[in-house]
Amino acid sequence: MDAFFQPVELEKAYRLINHGPTILVSATHEGVENVMSAAWACGLDFKPAKLTVVLDKSAFTRRLIEASGQFVIQVPTAAQADLVHYLGTHSRHQEQDKLLKSGVDLFSVPEVAPPLVAGCAAWLFCHLIPLEQNQQDHDLFIGEIKSAWADSRVFREGHWHFEEAGDEWRSLHYIAGKHFYTTGTSLVVE
Amino acid sequence: MDAFFQPVELEKAYRLINHGPTILVSATHEGVENVMSAAWACGLDFKPAKLTVVLDKSAFTRRLIEASGQFVIQVPTAAQADLVHYLGTHSRHQEQDKLLKSGVDLFSVPEVAPPLVAGCAAWLFCHLIPLEQNQQDHDLFIGEIKSAWADSRVFREGHWHFEEAGDEWRSLHYIAGKHFYTTGTSLVVE
Repeated sequence: MDAFFQPVELEKAYRLINHGPTILVSATHEGVENVMSAAWACGLDFKPAKLTVVLDKSAFTRRLIEASGQFVIQVPTAAQADLVHYLGTHSRHQEQDKLLKSGVDLFSVPEVAPPLVAGCAAWLFCHLIPLEQNQQDHDLFIGEIKSAWADSRVFREGHWHFEEAGDEWRSLHYIAGKHFYTTGTSLVVE
Repeated sequence: MDAFFQPVELEKAYRLINHGPTILVSATHEGVENVMSAAWACGLDFKPAKLTVVLDKSAFTRRLIEASGQFVIQVPTAAQADLVHYLGTHSRHQEQDKLLKSGVDLFSVPEVAPPLVAGCAAWLFCHLIPLEQNQQDHDLFIGEIKSAWADSRVFREGHWHFEEAGDEWRSLHYIAGKHFYTTGTSLVVE
């Protein structure tokens, strides 16, 4: 956490993920924490701000979320592509020291239980809205966004500023295998 | 429909939207058709291939989908940004001739009731999986992808080829107001 870690008003928090970036999900329960990557996260509502995220039954992080009812969605950057791929292709079920091996750098925020991933462009702290049928039948989880923050070098005053930050700050959009696209050029319609 | 309109195998259909593009939703019921833009569409499952899309209660297209149980999600291009913005900011409830005014060019595919939007990069024909609680409480709709196609100039053999097509073929990622980003640079991790 540094001077660039700035709060984002909840009414504009949807903008942090509206462009469909690949995200990292972090959670903790009874002293056990984990971070995973997910391509399937999406805005759901503006006020109260909500989002959806798809978490496979095989995901270790899913259990932590089901048990604790909380998670953080963060928007990683192009500089973190290797980390994102690692966290998305290794499970803590098989690799107990996954976080250590991944090299992920975590930090904490007062009154927020899940760890946050350092170096990301944005963070959304969510409370799970438990909906058993969605979770069981579709692996679909709904979160209400309770707090949001962004790195002010790339998101400030409610807007992304990718064009002014270095290319390493671009967010990631996963396709398959080892293939991502970064967020590209700003386009403003008439 | 032309020689570039090519089928995509259902196992790889998720890749058409995995990078989180802003999409167009089309539907028809009893001879009435409509197209709307939506930023909140997301993959949900690989096999059978499924997706989610958020459709506000004020959306005319939502009623067509509820009544017909079918819709098409299409991935528009940077060349269509003005069209996407128009279709996302005008409702057929207030503007009966919205489609005419928008200049949208529709075409049809055998055995697919909803119209498809010409000029897009990809199309996913979906059957609604009706889940009343999601639809009423969260405006959240789940579709099973029954057929998929892409323009082979930009997606072929299961992969996007944005870097080889012109920039006008890039997909769109909406933020807010009149502001989009286009899909950027390909990034392949080690």
